[in-house]
Amino acid sequence: MSQWIWKFGEFEIYHNQLVHNRRVQYGYREAPVWKVYSPDSVVRFRKTVTTNGGEFHIWACGYYSVVVGTGVNEKKYRGKEMIPLEAGTTVVQITVSSPEEFPCLYIDGVIETDGSWTADDLTAESAPVGTYPCFDAPDKLPTIFPFRYEPVACICKEAVLNGTLFDFGRETFARAVFTVKEDRELMISLGESWEEALDTERSVIHYRLRTENRRLELPPSAFRYIYVEGDADVTAEYEYLPLEYRGGFHCGEDIVNRVWDTAAYTFHLNCREFFLDGIKRDRWVWSADAYQSLFVNRCLFLDQDIEKRTLIALGGKSPIRAHINTIMDYTFFWIISLHEYYITYGDRQFLEQIYPQARDYMRFCRERADKDGFARGKEGDWIFIDWAPMDKDGALCGEQILFAKAMECFAAICAVIGRNDEGCGEQAKTLQTMVIEKFYDKEKGVFIDSFESGKRNVTRHSNILAYLFLPLNEEVKASLYEQVVLNDDVRHITTPYFKFYENQVHCESGNIKLLEHSIRKYYGSMLDTGATTLYEEYDPTMKGAEHYAMYGGAYEKSLCHAWSASPIYLLGRYRLGVRNTGVGYDTFEIAPNPGDLGAFTGTVPLPKGSVSITVENGEAAVQCTVEGGTLVAGGKRIPVPAGHEVRAKL
Amino acid sequence: MSQWIWKFGEFEIYHNQLVHNRRVQYGYREAPVWKVYSPDSVVRFRKTVTTNGGEFHIWACGYYSVVVGTGVNEKKYRGKEMIPLEAGTTVVQITVSSPEEFPCLYIDGVIETDGSWTADDLTAESAPVGTYPCFDAPDKLPTIFPFRYEPVACICKEAVLNGTLFDFGRETFARAVFTVKEDRELMISLGESWEEALDTERSVIHYRLRTENRRLELPPSAFRYIYVEGDADVTAEYEYLPLEYRGGFHCGEDIVNRVWDTAAYTFHLNCREFFLDGIKRDRWVWSADAYQSLFVNRCLFLDQDIEKRTLIALGGKSPIRAHINTIMDYTFFWIISLHEYYITYGDRQFLEQIYPQARDYMRFCRERADKDGFARGKEGDWIFIDWAPMDKDGALCGEQILFAKAMECFAAICAVIGRNDEGCGEQAKTLQTMVIEKFYDKEKGVFIDSFESGKRNVTRHSNILAYLFLPLNEEVKASLYEQVVLNDDVRHITTPYFKFYENQVHCESGNIKLLEHSIRKYYGSMLDTGATTLYEEYDPTMKGAEHYAMYGGAYEKSLCHAWSASPIYLLGRYRLGVRNTGVGYDTFEIAPNPGDLGAFTGTVPLPKGSVSITVENGEAAVQCTVEGGTLVAGGKRIPVPAGHEVRAKL
Repeated sequence: MSQWIWKFGEFEIYHNQLVHNRRVQYGYREAPVWKVYSPDSVVRFRKTVTTNGGEFHIWACGYYSVVVGTGVNEKKYRGKEMIPLEAGTTVVQITVSSPEEFPCLYIDGVIETDGSWTADDLTAESAPVGTYPCFDAPDKLPTIFPFRYEPVACICKEAVLNGTLFDFGRETFARAVFTVKEDRELMISLGESWEEALDTERSVIHYRLRTENRRLELPPSAFRYIYVEGDADVTAEYEYLPLEYRGGFHCGEDIVNRVWDTAAYTFHLNCREFFLDGIKRDRWVWSADAYQSLFVNRCLFLDQDIEKRTLIALGGKSPIRAHINTIMDYTFFWIISLHEYYITYGDRQFLEQIYPQARDYMRFCRERADKDGFARGKEGDWIFIDWAPMDKDGALCGEQILFAKAMECFAAICAVIGRNDEGCGEQAKTLQTMVIEKFYDKEKGVFIDSFESGKRNVTRHSNILAYLFLPLNEEVKASLYEQVVLNDDVRHITTPYFKFYENQVHCESGNIKLLEHSIRKYYGSMLDTGATTLYEEYDPTMKGAEHYAMYGGAYEKSLCHAWSASPIYLLGRYRLGVRNTGVGYDTFEIAPNPGDLGAFTGTVPLPKGSVSITVENGEAAVQCTVEGGTLVAGGKRIPVPAGHEVRAKL
Repeated sequence: MSQWIWKFGEFEIYHNQLVHNRRVQYGYREAPVWKVYSPDSVVRFRKTVTTNGGEFHIWACGYYSVVVGTGVNEKKYRGKEMIPLEAGTTVVQITVSSPEEFPCLYIDGVIETDGSWTADDLTAESAPVGTYPCFDAPDKLPTIFPFRYEPVACICKEAVLNGTLFDFGRETFARAVFTVKEDRELMISLGESWEEALDTERSVIHYRLRTENRRLELPPSAFRYIYVEGDADVTAEYEYLPLEYRGGFHCGEDIVNRVWDTAAYTFHLNCREFFLDGIKRDRWVWSADAYQSLFVNRCLFLDQDIEKRTLIALGGKSPIRAHINTIMDYTFFWIISLHEYYITYGDRQFLEQIYPQARDYMRFCRERADKDGFARGKEGDWIFIDWAPMDKDGALCGEQILFAKAMECFAAICAVIGRNDEGCGEQAKTLQTMVIEKFYDKEKGVFIDSFESGKRNVTRHSNILAYLFLPLNEEVKASLYEQVVLNDDVRHITTPYFKFYENQVHCESGNIKLLEHSIRKYYGSMLDTGATTLYEEYDPTMKGAEHYAMYGGAYEKSLCHAWSASPIYLLGRYRLGVRNTGVGYDTFEIAPNPGDLGAFTGTVPLPKGSVSITVENGEAAVQCTVEGGTLVAGGKRIPVPAGHEVRAKL
C-alpha cells in the first residue's frame, strides 16, 4: 500500500507554519510571537529496492530528479513520470524540490513509497521518512490537511440593530458563506457570544469585505453568532478533524454528564492539525496546553497521530536558541510529553526520530542553567507557570521541579533507545534534592516560590507541582495537601489550566468529593452562563459579558479552550479508574472509584481496544476487549481476561 | 534616507533559493544537488528612537504587527499603516511574517529604516539588519532582484531544416519572446552554439510549449542561437546586473585585447544575484568559482555588494552538516574568501555578521578531521580540487593545504573582530608543518598527492596549491616551479579554473612569458573556435562541436564560465601591477611589469578611486585618484600622491 512520504518532521513544520499564520484580530492579520520554522525546500528520498523488473510511477509535491543505480550503473531520468526498473537490486534516489510547500513523494507500480524509505536534506544524514496512513493515494496531497466538512445549520436568524444576527446554536468552527441580493461591502462581526457579535468594533473577528457575484466566503473561524450589517443570508460548513469518540462517561447526575459532553465537544474543536489552545484567537500550538491534551485524548479519542503531529511541530528545528513558545516551563513540558507519548503508545521509532530535537532542547536548557544548577529566566524567556501572581524573584520553584522532571524523562527516553543521557538522569536527582533543600520551608511544611527573595511566598502552584512531579514521601505530600491545597487562605486557582493539576492532586490524595465539587460548581456554573464550550478562564463571581473579557479586550477570552476539557481525563482516570501500568497499555489497572457520584458507566479506549466499566451499588463490572487488564477493587487485584465481564465489590 | 531592511542574511538566502530552483535541462526542471536553505518566515525588527513626535508610514513584504513602547507604556497598532509617535524616546518593534517570500520592512516619516535597526527571528538574538543601498523606495521591493533590461537584436534570421534559426551575434542572457501568426505548439531549442540550437533532442535547453494569444515568453536563459520549428518571430531582452566597468586594459596586441574584452563580458554575464559558475546549465553558486571571481572583480568592477551577497549566500544557515556545495575544498575557499573580502574592503561589520557561520563551518571541519589532524573525505563529501586525475587515496595534499589556510584566515578574522579563534591559528601552523613533513617528497623535491597510497603521484595541483598557500621558502618554491610547473612531463592543467592558479605561479615566479603565452595560445585559440565568451574547459586539440561536449552530454559544457575570466585579474595584478598592501587599499603598490607585452595602458579600480598605468619604452606612468599608492619600479619605491602623474624607469 503506497503512501505519501516526506522528510520526517517536515509535514508538521509546514502545517505548523500555516497554522501560525492564520491569526486575524480586529481586521488585521496578527504576526506570530515566537520562532516559526520553515520547511526544507529540497529533500532527497532513497531506497534500495529488489524487484523482478517493471515500471514505477512518480507523483510529487514539487519538481524532482530521478537517479537509479550508483556509480557507473547510475541512470538519470530527470523529471520523467514513468521509470523503468531492471530485475535485481538497485538504489532509487529521487530529489524533490518545493520552495513553495514542502517536498513529498508518492510512488506506485513495481515499487511503492512507505515508511521503509529514507530521506535527507542533502547533508547525508539519511533517516526514515515521515508518513501518515491517511495520505494513501496520489490525489490525497499532504500539503492539504485532510479536514472533513459538513453543513452546520443556523437555528435562528433575526433582525437586530441595522443588520441581521445569526445564531448557530452552539460554538462551532466553520467556513461561513454570505449571499446578498446586490454586491456591496459587508460589515461582518463574529461572536462566541451574542454580545461580541453585536459589538462590531470590539469583536475579535470582524471584517469589512466586498461580495463578488453577490457572494462572500470567510476563512474558517470560530463563532456561535454572526452579525451582518443589512440583510444577507449565511450558510456555514463545519470544518473538523474526523476522530472516533472511543471514550464515554455517563452517570445519574445531569450536570456532570453535561460537563463531560461539553468538554468532549470543546476538546474536539481544538483537535485539528495539532492540539490548539483555543479556536478563536491565536489558534496556535502551546506546549503545556498540549501536555494536558495528551491526557484528555487518552480518555476520549486516544488518537496517536495528533499527539505525534503536535509533539513534532513543537520540537521545531535546530539550532535551538529559545524556549518553546518562549516559555521555559513549556520546554520542560514538551520533554515530559515525549515520554508520556512513548509510555502511552510504545512508539520507540518516534523517540529515535525526535531524539535530536529532544537532545538539543535538553542541552539548551542545561547550558542556560546557572552554576548552582537552577534555571532562572534569561533574556527573552517567559517564566509562566500560570497567570496567577507568584514570587518570580530568582529561581522559581515550579520551574526547577519541571526542569528536574524533564531531565528525568529525557534520561528515560535515552534508556529506551540506547542513547547516552549526557548525565541528565543524575542531574535530575541532584536538582530534586536541591529543590527540596532550598524551597521546602521546614517551618511552614510547604514549598515556597522563591528562596532568594526572602518573602517565603506560598502558592498552590509550587506545591501542586511539587506534589505531582517531585519524589516526595507520603507524609510531605499529605502536609502540602492539607496546608496548601485544602487551605482557603492560599489564593485559589482561577485557570482551568491549573485546575487540571489541582484536581489531580485531590484525586491522588484520595479525596472523593472535591473533583465532583469542582465539576458541579466551577464547570456547572460556567455552563449556567450559557457556555456551549468551556472557557479559557472563569470566575464564578462575574456577571454577563464580564465573562468574555481578558488580555485587555472585551471579548478576548477564548470561550472554547482545550485546557478546560480536563474532566474527561479526571473522570476516566480517577472514577472509571483506568491507568496504563506498562508501555502502550501492555498492562493496565482498572481501579474504579465511585467518588461522590455513586454510580456511573463508561468506556476508556486502549491502543488496540477498550475497557468498559460500570459502577453501581458499591460494585464494579469491568469488561476489556484486550488482555493485560487488572481490576483493583476491595483491596484485591483481579486479572481481567479479554472478552469476559469481571465483577467485584469496591 | 530610508532603505528596505531585513534580518541579516535573509535577502541572500531567499534569492539563493530562487537561483537554485531555476535550472532546466532537456525540458525538465533539475533539482538542486546540495542543501538549499529557506528564509525565516517571521522576523522582529526593533529600534529605540528619539523624536519630536509625528507619524511614520510602514511598508512590508509580508504582514506585520506593530508595538510601540515597552511594559505598561506598550501600545499595539496591529497592522496599521500610519503610526503616531509621541515626542521622546521609545522602542518601536515591528514583527513581520512572510511565509511565501521573506520578511522585509520599509518605514518613512518621523522615523526611517536603515542599517541602525536590529532584527531577530524571535529567539532574542537581535543583530544589525541587512540592507543594500539600491532598495531605497517603497516600490523597490527586495523580493524582486533589481536586474536591468535592454533589447538585444537578432543579427541574422534564416530558414534552416523545418524551422528558423536566429543568431544574436554573441552569447547573451535574455528573455526571448516568440510571436506567431496562429497559436500552436512551439518546439524551441536554444544554443550557445548553432550546432546545439539545431540539435533539438540534445540541446540542453529546449521546450515544447504552446503560444497563447499568438505569443510565448521564455524565462531568461543563456543562448547565442535560437531555433524554432516552423516560422516565428523573436525579440529578446538582455537581463543583466548594472555594473560599472571601472577597470580596463589595452595593449598593442589584438589577441590579448580581445581575450581581455571577452573575459570582461563573460564575467559580467556571470555576475548576477551572486557570482555564478556559468549562465547556461546549473547557474548555481559555487564557492571556489566565487573565490576566483573575487579576484577578477577586483580588477574590473570592484563591486563590493556582489561579493558580500555571494559570501552570505554560500554561508547558509546553522546547523552545518555538510560542506559548501558538498565539496571539502569549497568550504575552505569560502573561509579564505571571507578574509579576502575583508582585506579588500575593510568591512569589519560584515566579519561580525558572518562570524557565526564562519565559526560553525570551522568547527564542522575540525570536528570532521581525523585524529592525526588531516581532513579526509567522510560520507557525502566531495574531494574535488579539479577535474584532473589525482591520487585521492587517504588524505589529499591539496585539501590539507587549504584546510590550514582556512584556519589561518579564520584566526585572522577573529583577530580583527576580537573573537577567540578557538585554537585555529595554532592548528593551522601545526598542520602546515605536518603537510610539509608528510607530503613533501625529499627525494623528488616536490609535493606528492598522497603519503598513504605509496604511489608518490605528482600533480601540478598539489604543488601549485603548496606554492600559493603554504609558507615555503624561496628555494623550495623554485624547486616546485622548475620540477613541476615548468615540466612538460607532469600532466598539464586543462581547466581554466586551475589555469588561474598556475598562471599566478608563473607570475609570482617572475616568469614574464608564460602568462602571455597562455593568453595567446590557450585563450587565443579558444576565440578562434568562434567563442564570444570563454569556455568552462578547453582542449585546443579538439575540433568543431567536440568543444561543446562535457559531463556525458553533447552540449553540456558551459561556453560562458566565470572561472575563465582570470586574464582580467592576472593582467591587472601582474602587468599593471596593482596590489592592496593594507586593508581596503589604504596602502597599495603599483609594480608595473611589461612582461612579454612591452607596452600597455590600463586602469585598476580602488574602493574610493582608481589607478591608471601606462607602460611604454621601459617606463611606467602612474596616476592615482586617491592617496596610499607606492610605485615600485627599477628597484625603487616612489610614493604616488593623489592626482599627480608619477613616471619611473622600470
